[in-house]
Amino acid sequence: MPAALRAAGAAKAALRPAMAARVVSPARPFTTVGAYRLAAVKPFHKDEPAGPILKTKSLPGPESTRHIKELTESFETRSLNMMVDYTKSVGNYIADPDGNMLLDVYAQIASIPVGYNNPELAKVAKSPEMVDAIINRPALGNFPSHTWASILKTGILKYAPKGFDNVYTAMAGSDANEIAFKAAFMYRRQLERGGPDVDFTPEEIESAMRNEAPGSPNLSILSFKGSFHGRLFGTLSCTRSKPIHKIDIPAFDWPQATFPQLKYPLEQHAEENAKAEQASIDEVEQLIKTWRVPPAAVIVEPIQSEGGDNHASPAFFQKLREVTRKHDVLLIADEVQTGIGATGKFWAHEHWNLQDPPDMVTFSKKAQTAGYYYRTKALRPNKPYRQFNTWMGDPAKALLFRGICNEIDRHDLVNHTAKVGNYLFTKLEGLAQKYPEHFKNLRGKGQGTFIAFDNPKRDEFLAKAKSFGVNIGGSGTTAVRLRPMLTFQQHHADILIDAMEKIVKAL
Amino acid sequence: MPAALRAAGAAKAALRPAMAARVVSPARPFTTVGAYRLAAVKPFHKDEPAGPILKTKSLPGPESTRHIKELTESFETRSLNMMVDYTKSVGNYIADPDGNMLLDVYAQIASIPVGYNNPELAKVAKSPEMVDAIINRPALGNFPSHTWASILKTGILKYAPKGFDNVYTAMAGSDANEIAFKAAFMYRRQLERGGPDVDFTPEEIESAMRNEAPGSPNLSILSFKGSFHGRLFGTLSCTRSKPIHKIDIPAFDWPQATFPQLKYPLEQHAEENAKAEQASIDEVEQLIKTWRVPPAAVIVEPIQSEGGDNHASPAFFQKLREVTRKHDVLLIADEVQTGIGATGKFWAHEHWNLQDPPDMVTFSKKAQTAGYYYRTKALRPNKPYRQFNTWMGDPAKALLFRGICNEIDRHDLVNHTAKVGNYLFTKLEGLAQKYPEHFKNLRGKGQGTFIAFDNPKRDEFLAKAKSFGVNIGGSGTTAVRLRPMLTFQQHHADILIDAMEKIVKAL
Repeated sequence: MPAALRAAGAAKAALRPAMAARVVSPARPFTTVGAYRLAAVKPFHKDEPAGPILKTKSLPGPESTRHIKELTESFETRSLNMMVDYTKSVGNYIADPDGNMLLDVYAQIASIPVGYNNPELAKVAKSPEMVDAIINRPALGNFPSHTWASILKTGILKYAPKGFDNVYTAMAGSDANEIAFKAAFMYRRQLERGGPDVDFTPEEIESAMRNEAPGSPNLSILSFKGSFHGRLFGTLSCTRSKPIHKIDIPAFDWPQATFPQLKYPLEQHAEENAKAEQASIDEVEQLIKTWRVPPAAVIVEPIQSEGGDNHASPAFFQKLREVTRKHDVLLIADEVQTGIGATGKFWAHEHWNLQDPPDMVTFSKKAQTAGYYYRTKALRPNKPYRQFNTWMGDPAKALLFRGICNEIDRHDLVNHTAKVGNYLFTKLEGLAQKYPEHFKNLRGKGQGTFIAFDNPKRDEFLAKAKSFGVNIGGSGTTAVRLRPMLTFQQHHADILIDAMEKIVKAL
Repeated sequence: MPAALRAAGAAKAALRPAMAARVVSPARPFTTVGAYRLAAVKPFHKDEPAGPILKTKSLPGPESTRHIKELTESFETRSLNMMVDYTKSVGNYIADPDGNMLLDVYAQIASIPVGYNNPELAKVAKSPEMVDAIINRPALGNFPSHTWASILKTGILKYAPKGFDNVYTAMAGSDANEIAFKAAFMYRRQLERGGPDVDFTPEEIESAMRNEAPGSPNLSILSFKGSFHGRLFGTLSCTRSKPIHKIDIPAFDWPQATFPQLKYPLEQHAEENAKAEQASIDEVEQLIKTWRVPPAAVIVEPIQSEGGDNHASPAFFQKLREVTRKHDVLLIADEVQTGIGATGKFWAHEHWNLQDPPDMVTFSKKAQTAGYYYRTKALRPNKPYRQFNTWMGDPAKALLFRGICNEIDRHDLVNHTAKVGNYLFTKLEGLAQKYPEHFKNLRGKGQGTFIAFDNPKRDEFLAKAKSFGVNIGGSGTTAVRLRPMLTFQQHHADILIDAMEKIVKAL
């Protein structure tokens, strides 16, 4: 028996059903009630059920169906995955209006950090500071609160990547990336113009109002095939993951480089993977030198997420830093999905061990707020109102992020996630050995719970998951992506592994 | 004595200083304490001071200065207008950390609807629903709450413009406009393709991933010179108000039409104004027919706000509707600044009396949430995930908007604003007669409190305003724009008029 399987077996024994669980028969999978006694480990969420609870034969149940019908009258529901009762959701469990409770390892597209109805976040939400922030929302660039510096220092900036002590706040990942792009363009033009003190020419001023060069410069952002950076017009020009995101929407003539397509297991393909990475770096350099719309910055996800959980090695990112530095092109790490602990480090780019970090790091999702960190004041535009909008972020969400960071601290959740990720990965290796056709290209080793694998019947896999009590998401065309919260624990991993084995048996 | 002046005098008499106000001497304007006894009218905010309170000789005072210095270390402060203590702000009065309280007719760039620390909004902010919305933020397109349909119906949709029963929610005005643009492009391509059931071609799919036509089509949004629609890459390509917004940022090759430059007073320039409007309509039609990147939509503000409070007549907008309809080009009314009551109607485009309303109406600012309303399900893209992002809005802000709408209802604030706007306008006409060089091109008659005028020393005017106890904003290059909250009352108008007279005397 391989070690991985022995470990899995031992863990399963530790879990022990508290009562004889109603047997999961393929004929009646939906009536299963998973009832587990928790292992000795202290749960972060004491009100969580011991396991998934399935009350209806299928999802959506009748109550959910009624709510979906009502919502369809006025809102987009064709992308609806599950109708949710958030008041009954708790910790890692998402509830629906029919009383079903699923273990949620999708977590609102990787954006819930520390569990549903986290009591500490509820305290933050009820605090006088939060009430003030909600009902007196400031235009932060013009009329900041006297508490704003302190909110930044104790929250958003406390967990800034090392070397970054400045931030522009935003509302979501997409606009965070776009303001980072704007900073990159202004920085580049400033270099070309001869420094921050050189004024705009009348020609620049006049042509900018006509959307023409030189005022509206012929510059680009380079991104990678398979990347996702958002769906506004600038970010969508960089997003290259799926046609459904892009089709019919005008785009800038910006370049894309091939992202290395690593082969798994990594140990067995070291040489060809290294070659793929070098080829990608060479292509980046070639595009920087020759693309008809010169790049002012390269934007890259530490792990391509929407695009199918595509990884690259630290060596790749080190070279990417070198080649961008060499050509005076800025490097933006898009940590919207990878940031805030899920990879076992607070920021995924910490895995790269760079001497010279990225120039900007963008964040959102689990931060519940958004923005970009920057290292040098040179990336603060040379005049006011160049990087400006009405709200420029939201103190209410900044307070929430501070509360999230405090929860991360209190439970040491980043290190916890590194450990539970290793545990989960080992168990997945066991499943992959047992069902190699269902757990292909298992990836994310040493990357916390940021784990994925390919399944040839991926969509069916995800649909069936609900009937076994788990909510799982996909990415790319065939990837099952795991995006548990930071409070995902060993006993949740056991339930998940158990459910996934049942899913593939039923496929 | 002209009627306007008599009315102003009578109103001033009704106000009566409660005590002999310390005389405003030009030498010591900063020590003035305005102390007014309220007229018989019932104040909406019972805890408001009777008038502005000035505690420091100048703004920023020492406490504010200390906070500004602290914030400058990590955040953009060069655009800072005033450091604010929101906990001490109340109703129409904005407070700073030094104890100064100014009558605020700028209201966070026109985004505070019903007063600082509104107690009814505080109740909403403390409600269990709000706490739930804050700590369990959903990915609305995938995992909406079972309460979402009801939140929409009782809030965002309850006050939808007549004929609009669908909405896509967003986070701020800029992304609301961009998703409206995307809807327009998808709609246009769908028409060209032959309807919603005609599938994308392999060529479209493949070219979209390269940001090239036909997948990324050669289409545009037509906007007007002087317009402001946001500062993301798509919206900034439409924004044409100031070079500082646009310079160094790549832009799409989209067309701009001249917005009619009306002359005031309108009665004296009826003929030439009508000609200017017709010329603008002709230019729109010409651009629709001939611009090298064909427009899928025209976006227009009912009143150009950032661009200097530029108005056009209902006849202009009626013709704009006709010409867009004639050429199958969509019409988007950008009501981000004009919406939610400030013009004396809930939506400013109601002033146009259109039989055939705009196709989409975008909103944000005073709504505290954002999105676009649309009239026909044909503007809902033909497949899921075409109009999608992680959060797709924010239930917490939607709850806040519902609370705002309830306040508007409770006090009939839209009609109130129409009336107090007329009162204010009449008094301004009085000032304009007395000081014609300081109150030029007075505009916004019959448009609630959405009033502006030009002043040759505008920046000095705005700076001096604080020393007379009022916070006022500008727009364009010479306009003083008034953007009071909806709870701005007659006695506030009297204080404002009094302060403005002092300001121009001191210029």
